[in-house]
Amino acid sequence: MPRYAKVTKTIVNQLGTIVGTENVIWGQAIPEQYAYDAGTRKEGLSYPEVLVFPGNRQDVAEILKIANNLLIPVTPRGGGTGLAGGAVPLNGGIVLDLRRMNRIVHIDPAARYMVVEPAVRTMDIQQVAHQHGLLYAGDPCSSDECVIAGNIATNAGGNKAIKYGVTGDQVYELEVVTPQGEIVTLGGRLKKNSTGYGLVRLIAGSEGTLGIITQVTIKLQKLAPLLPNFLAVFPNLAAAISLVGDLLADTVIDPISIELIDRQTVLDLERYQQQKIFVDAIGDCLIIQLEAYTQAEVQKKWIKLQEICHIRGCLAVAEIEGEKIWPARRAWGKAIEVDHPVGVSEDIVVPVDQIEAFVSQLKTLTRAFQFQFRIAGHAGDGNMHIRIIPGEVSALEWPNEVNKFREKLYSATYDLGGRLSGEHGIGLKRKAILRGIIDPVELALMQAIKKAFDPNHILNPGKIFDMMSPATNNADTVILP
Amino acid sequence: MPRYAKVTKTIVNQLGTIVGTENVIWGQAIPEQYAYDAGTRKEGLSYPEVLVFPGNRQDVAEILKIANNLLIPVTPRGGGTGLAGGAVPLNGGIVLDLRRMNRIVHIDPAARYMVVEPAVRTMDIQQVAHQHGLLYAGDPCSSDECVIAGNIATNAGGNKAIKYGVTGDQVYELEVVTPQGEIVTLGGRLKKNSTGYGLVRLIAGSEGTLGIITQVTIKLQKLAPLLPNFLAVFPNLAAAISLVGDLLADTVIDPISIELIDRQTVLDLERYQQQKIFVDAIGDCLIIQLEAYTQAEVQKKWIKLQEICHIRGCLAVAEIEGEKIWPARRAWGKAIEVDHPVGVSEDIVVPVDQIEAFVSQLKTLTRAFQFQFRIAGHAGDGNMHIRIIPGEVSALEWPNEVNKFREKLYSATYDLGGRLSGEHGIGLKRKAILRGIIDPVELALMQAIKKAFDPNHILNPGKIFDMMSPATNNADTVILP
Repeated sequence: MPRYAKVTKTIVNQLGTIVGTENVIWGQAIPEQYAYDAGTRKEGLSYPEVLVFPGNRQDVAEILKIANNLLIPVTPRGGGTGLAGGAVPLNGGIVLDLRRMNRIVHIDPAARYMVVEPAVRTMDIQQVAHQHGLLYAGDPCSSDECVIAGNIATNAGGNKAIKYGVTGDQVYELEVVTPQGEIVTLGGRLKKNSTGYGLVRLIAGSEGTLGIITQVTIKLQKLAPLLPNFLAVFPNLAAAISLVGDLLADTVIDPISIELIDRQTVLDLERYQQQKIFVDAIGDCLIIQLEAYTQAEVQKKWIKLQEICHIRGCLAVAEIEGEKIWPARRAWGKAIEVDHPVGVSEDIVVPVDQIEAFVSQLKTLTRAFQFQFRIAGHAGDGNMHIRIIPGEVSALEWPNEVNKFREKLYSATYDLGGRLSGEHGIGLKRKAILRGIIDPVELALMQAIKKAFDPNHILNPGKIFDMMSPATNNADTVILP
Repeated sequence: MPRYAKVTKTIVNQLGTIVGTENVIWGQAIPEQYAYDAGTRKEGLSYPEVLVFPGNRQDVAEILKIANNLLIPVTPRGGGTGLAGGAVPLNGGIVLDLRRMNRIVHIDPAARYMVVEPAVRTMDIQQVAHQHGLLYAGDPCSSDECVIAGNIATNAGGNKAIKYGVTGDQVYELEVVTPQGEIVTLGGRLKKNSTGYGLVRLIAGSEGTLGIITQVTIKLQKLAPLLPNFLAVFPNLAAAISLVGDLLADTVIDPISIELIDRQTVLDLERYQQQKIFVDAIGDCLIIQLEAYTQAEVQKKWIKLQEICHIRGCLAVAEIEGEKIWPARRAWGKAIEVDHPVGVSEDIVVPVDQIEAFVSQLKTLTRAFQFQFRIAGHAGDGNMHIRIIPGEVSALEWPNEVNKFREKLYSATYDLGGRLSGEHGIGLKRKAILRGIIDPVELALMQAIKKAFDPNHILNPGKIFDMMSPATNNADTVILP
């Protein structure tokens, strides 16, 4: 493994020749925001040496050829909304900010697909699809800021995964630039394909470590004209969770979203948004979104929903008019952080039938450590976003205690068949944890793939895993705490 | 790249120690069926040196350790129903027949999943799921003979892909033995997972070249109580195909299968099955299967189906009672071969909105070459099973002419955004074609992954692609025509 080269004035000039000097920022002029992402600001800054804004696939290819020849690390960056440090340039080098590549290239409503450049904002894709009477089903909570290539890089989930799957399921075709600067199109606009290895699904979720996405062909779905939202309030989390399995098994209701929000988070959110969002009854809540083509269908589903809610001891269930519930849902992370700036956030995923067991373990553990927790999970797919906050524990004890706590929490998660990340990715933040808990054979397979794609290890090094033992003084070990 | 070692008596004894001597067959005693699969018998025989029947994952692991140390090729075999030569031991060596590993390990109807060993027959999985009121959605036409690990290895599609996706979409978790003999569990029983690379989807469709599947956790779906089948007869293929887009866009009908069968194949099938299967009107047909929970829902869908059929100039549309249409659909390949033993079969997939353009090109080309064709495609997902038959062309001219024809057909397919294989895989039969048509960068990525997993190239060598230039005298170039 070579050490990386430094970015010199000569290299900066070369980059300027490719993209235009106005699209290169070097050294001290680089804005601070490029030294962190939405999940790592508090954990330290790691600046790139040079920031480049490529305008097209050829720009990306030429930049990567230079970087690969000279051994300069390259970190791709989309919306900067990642929560695991995936876009943080751990080893300096080049940050490729893809924001200029933000065109919607083509939409075919009849064949239900859209071709977009990597930095199209996810909400814009959703809105353009809507304008054509169609649904783009990828729906991460950061949709107003994140971009499609970032969603693919983390295989983002979001609010509609229970019916439509995750971002990887929405992708027909990817144009990717390899670390060697070759432009290749993977996959196809096909419902099935057994023509060699399925490389699209390997790139999805690889967090920018295998190639730079320069164009995407995404699937669009039929859009139901009615998407009513309901709120069901329960006296405790266990009762709320018990409804999830019922909802998923029911053949009438067929929900597209089931979101769990605990009682305290409801109050935090309303305070943060400075408005009444939820219903008068206070408790642990499920937000349930349904699809329907007629009002009669909504009515039928609503009757069935009330039935099963009441069997599970629901305190209140009501339709929430309009769309105000979703901005509130999306703001959850921010609302909690305002009230609890000290804390750690998790993205754990467990089998849906193990959510109750997971929350039970979470309660036991937080009680034992005298912590508190907040929960706002994609309950329909088992993805539990939780924030652990110090509660009674002093600032002095917190860092050490929370590490001990997390070790126990992850161990419990794996015992239930869960994993560290449902949709945010491993990035920088969770790689040390992953190394401790993953089957070494699985890790070795991932590392072998990385080496096969990127033998010089220039592309987003130090993400998901390191390529060498952390004991050696290599260039890509963790630098953030 | 080393040449492979020969299987000696000593090695056979070692294998016997692992699996029991009764589970090893050596040399001349190996039945002929192991020298071909369902798609390659006519194209030549290629025997293994030794045939081994492992009983469990440890057996597989120990066998692979020996093979990897001694450089003996290993070809896994499931039901032997593959159509691309994937299970043919091109370089001799060991065939691992997994038939002893055929237990259903566990079914959890509430959580809707099943854990099975690799050689459980697909139809048995379907039936056990049915007995628990659930659906296993993988449904290849060979379901009465093929096994689940083979379905995963080719990422088999089948009759329900339009609603439920292909086999890879049905898999939660895979236990795999690596070429080095390590046992690893990939994936998880999770609706989403961003914890490192998505290796399950890489193994699916890799045709036994990256690892041996020893256990599978598959998803089960809610089973609709009513699954009515309809037949719509059209005056020509174009009219039949024009209905496909309507059916997929319709929000009431929501079909689970749309199968296209041409007029001549209908007659061939009825002659082969020696019974009236279709309706009295003769023409190019669509078989349409729907799901419903009530008779009222069936009625509503049926009314809508008739409406859109008649707009498209349908000659007749009728419900086909019971399940007799599906055994007929599954027998298509055999029925055609009885009447037309000389011919070539294709597994081309195109975007669904390009089926009409594809069939139009197919007609033009067959006319130009004076060939005929039969078609029975999974029209709902663009996967066109066609058989090209000599028609007026003499036996002498046929081999040369059909090669010229195929080159033009594949070129037209790729121009439409299609690919060589929708569900059968590349195996041995299509690798030379693939090499000529694939983007070399994509091929190089696949080869790099293969090398990363299997540096000694012992696992199913010579499938999908070769690892060296065909000009060199390497051990794994094409031996079949």
